[in-house]
Amino acid sequence: MAPFTSLLLLLFAFLGTVTPAKSMPAFFPRASYYQSLTAKQSKATKPKVAYKTHYFPQILDHFTFQPKSSKIFYQKYLINSQYWHRGAPIFVYTGNEGDIDWFAANTGFLLDIAPKFRALLVFIEHRFYGESMPFGKDSYNSVETLGYLNSQQALADFAVLLRSLKHNLSSEASPVVVFGGSYGGMLAAWFRLKYPHIAIGALASSAPILQFDDITPWSSFYDAVSQDYKDASLNCYEVIKGSWAELEALSAQKEGLVELSRTFRTCKNLHSLDSVWDWLWSAFVYTAMVNYPTEANFMMPLPAYPVKEMCKIIDGFPPRASKISRVFAAASLYYNYSRGEKCFQLENEPDSHGLHGWNWQACTEMVMPMTCSIESMFPPSGYDYKEFAEGCKKKYGVTPRPHWITTEFGGKRIDQVLKRSGGNIIFSNGMQDPWSRGSVLKNISSSIIALVTKKGAHHVDFRSATKDDPDWLKELRRQEAEIIGRWIDEYYADLKQGIDNA
Amino acid sequence: MAPFTSLLLLLFAFLGTVTPAKSMPAFFPRASYYQSLTAKQSKATKPKVAYKTHYFPQILDHFTFQPKSSKIFYQKYLINSQYWHRGAPIFVYTGNEGDIDWFAANTGFLLDIAPKFRALLVFIEHRFYGESMPFGKDSYNSVETLGYLNSQQALADFAVLLRSLKHNLSSEASPVVVFGGSYGGMLAAWFRLKYPHIAIGALASSAPILQFDDITPWSSFYDAVSQDYKDASLNCYEVIKGSWAELEALSAQKEGLVELSRTFRTCKNLHSLDSVWDWLWSAFVYTAMVNYPTEANFMMPLPAYPVKEMCKIIDGFPPRASKISRVFAAASLYYNYSRGEKCFQLENEPDSHGLHGWNWQACTEMVMPMTCSIESMFPPSGYDYKEFAEGCKKKYGVTPRPHWITTEFGGKRIDQVLKRSGGNIIFSNGMQDPWSRGSVLKNISSSIIALVTKKGAHHVDFRSATKDDPDWLKELRRQEAEIIGRWIDEYYADLKQGIDNA
Repeated sequence: MAPFTSLLLLLFAFLGTVTPAKSMPAFFPRASYYQSLTAKQSKATKPKVAYKTHYFPQILDHFTFQPKSSKIFYQKYLINSQYWHRGAPIFVYTGNEGDIDWFAANTGFLLDIAPKFRALLVFIEHRFYGESMPFGKDSYNSVETLGYLNSQQALADFAVLLRSLKHNLSSEASPVVVFGGSYGGMLAAWFRLKYPHIAIGALASSAPILQFDDITPWSSFYDAVSQDYKDASLNCYEVIKGSWAELEALSAQKEGLVELSRTFRTCKNLHSLDSVWDWLWSAFVYTAMVNYPTEANFMMPLPAYPVKEMCKIIDGFPPRASKISRVFAAASLYYNYSRGEKCFQLENEPDSHGLHGWNWQACTEMVMPMTCSIESMFPPSGYDYKEFAEGCKKKYGVTPRPHWITTEFGGKRIDQVLKRSGGNIIFSNGMQDPWSRGSVLKNISSSIIALVTKKGAHHVDFRSATKDDPDWLKELRRQEAEIIGRWIDEYYADLKQGIDNA
Repeated sequence: MAPFTSLLLLLFAFLGTVTPAKSMPAFFPRASYYQSLTAKQSKATKPKVAYKTHYFPQILDHFTFQPKSSKIFYQKYLINSQYWHRGAPIFVYTGNEGDIDWFAANTGFLLDIAPKFRALLVFIEHRFYGESMPFGKDSYNSVETLGYLNSQQALADFAVLLRSLKHNLSSEASPVVVFGGSYGGMLAAWFRLKYPHIAIGALASSAPILQFDDITPWSSFYDAVSQDYKDASLNCYEVIKGSWAELEALSAQKEGLVELSRTFRTCKNLHSLDSVWDWLWSAFVYTAMVNYPTEANFMMPLPAYPVKEMCKIIDGFPPRASKISRVFAAASLYYNYSRGEKCFQLENEPDSHGLHGWNWQACTEMVMPMTCSIESMFPPSGYDYKEFAEGCKKKYGVTPRPHWITTEFGGKRIDQVLKRSGGNIIFSNGMQDPWSRGSVLKNISSSIIALVTKKGAHHVDFRSATKDDPDWLKELRRQEAEIIGRWIDEYYADLKQGIDNA
């Protein structure tokens, strides 16, 4: 799914030191790889008739006052009003880096709880994604246009749109609760903190708001991925950890790439080890993130607890089998669970417009340092900010602002800060999800709550309920709905008191 | 003083309907009038050696990422470190629309309490004021440059500067408390709400954060001015209320302006009634705002409780005396308390660059609707947004965003919103100050406190203590220091707990 995928792509930026393509951050090729992938996906999963599409005339630049900054663009948003009546709550998904239809399709939780709250559902698309292109197809053409793509402008978009929407619905007194997953969860939490007069609360699922500066250990993400595999089987973890060296050694041999092409059943002969590396890397990381307790089709169709399944495959080989053959078989579960693929397209065409929104955000404000420790199942790597910044300068002509997010939104000593300010936020995380390590995992106050599930994965709580959901997942969703219900009751009580006192 | 004066100038924008100059908002001529006035003043009151001047390389645009938005300008700030040691509190004045030296000179409260807290004092100049001109002397030349003058950019300036300052002082753990008066008080309160991770609390003195949209009745400001005079003497109020018609009638007569020139002892013969109107209007409004309990030299040298003194003059005339002669004599107290003026310069040269920062802010985000009710001592007037917007369009080529401030910072149902979010803010107001009506006058929570004094005027609490201060003023300042002390104690206790738990 777009949010974590592109959050994920970011990681590779910091692995330039181990990826052969040293000259620039390694996430650009992967970006296009990801795009072709999600493009395929999103076609497959357009939402049903549950939402009506609208377009809001949005202001380009909320924070300067110039004729050009007052330019209007059309921001897409989706509405479901089948359960709503005037004055009832409004549940808003703060869209992140992708088509809003895609998020609506993968956030069934809101549809599941809407009847109970008689809630209006609104999914707002993030500027510069999906159809919400401020400069049409030229939006990605230059730094002049991309400059308006950032999280503060996006939050202001939500504020302006919601105020106008409530006015047009003659429902100013409706309480708004914001929901978001991954980067969308960061936006939901930040929106509640910056715009408490517009949102009475936020459910931020798998939102790594602490993945910046030195707040979270840089190696935590890949250590967490590795832990998932280690928990499934120590042998599995060791095979994957050892496979990279085997790959390097083989590719260094004469005819090595030919043999690799055969082993990996590539549709075309390989030109470099890079693509194999990326292909395996993505399979292991994505699978850890979507290590869901039920069969799901998210990034790819996968069985329940896919990490365990991958490790079963790896452990099931005869003792003499090569690590390469094992990791190929394991990765095939990710790429070919439906068994539709005769061969694998490891080397992709470069992305048509050569740019990707999240890469831009990663090169400006979303600077999340990451490393691979020697304990991880990936080759050790450090974080070279200088190399990263040079890559950004070269690619976009901008220099990152690595400390801006923590200056604008905070994060350091977050418990100390938010216990004296803010309120009504749920941070939900599943420990299977490597992003959980960069989120809030402990209660901060009586109304800033951390809900942590040992077996949960990347915003699993936002997926539609299924008959196979385990009890811990049902309980998690029940708790979330209960807390949100409390916020809404408090809001109406405060409102009544305010009217009585007036 | 700059903050309230220019807040004040704004009012006239909404009086186009009663001022003869109907063609454009009437505050532009007054702006230049104000400028010549404060220019005179600020020279007189440059601060002593208490502060050392510094310049911070500040980023032009925090909210877009473009080569030009990364342009650096030098933001002036003042430091007093004589009482400070590393780790001790940092008290910051969030500068408003004027020279920062001017605010430092008129905010002796911080110097008075610094020793008790061993606090570092920092006064930060607001972009586009004083010496902090992003484009040097061209800063006011066009909408392209002025576009970067607004409150959100100013708040981000404070955040970036303070983070850097704490880092350079190796004192990241020092608690920061922000202080501000008038517009600076709005900035202090908003800074605490938007940047709680940087400021642990805010003292917002005479901050009319509710003077927007329809939150505060539009007539409240001039009704409050009138109440000050009515409380001093009903006759005084009635004389002033009746004087405007007398002025109109006289100016309509042949030789009327000549007679007015004589009556008002003007240095040059008058060309229109406008200037007399403005001259009186300013005297009555400014005097109400600075109706201090002690002799003070703020806008102008004035005796203690100057409103009462003005009314004594008006009431002291023989029964037959004209209203015009009485209001002239009263206004002379404001303009000539020191008795230095042989004649009065009522008609001023137009301001050299013809623009003024606050007028720009009033024409973009700081849209504060105001009217004069029939109960006020001023001629009744409505609020014509269309006329105001046309004036702004004509003058600057921008269209105001009248609902932006309440979208970005809130204000509606503020008690309901802030009791569930935010904390550690003091709103202090004196009821003599007409701006008090647009501020927070009731406690919102246990840590968002309203301190209201019946006899207080525009941020009187920020002035240096004097031997003549009445008990209620001493008590107000004592309470403020006590509450701030509590925030600081809580902060250090939280910090210790955080370290112990880590």
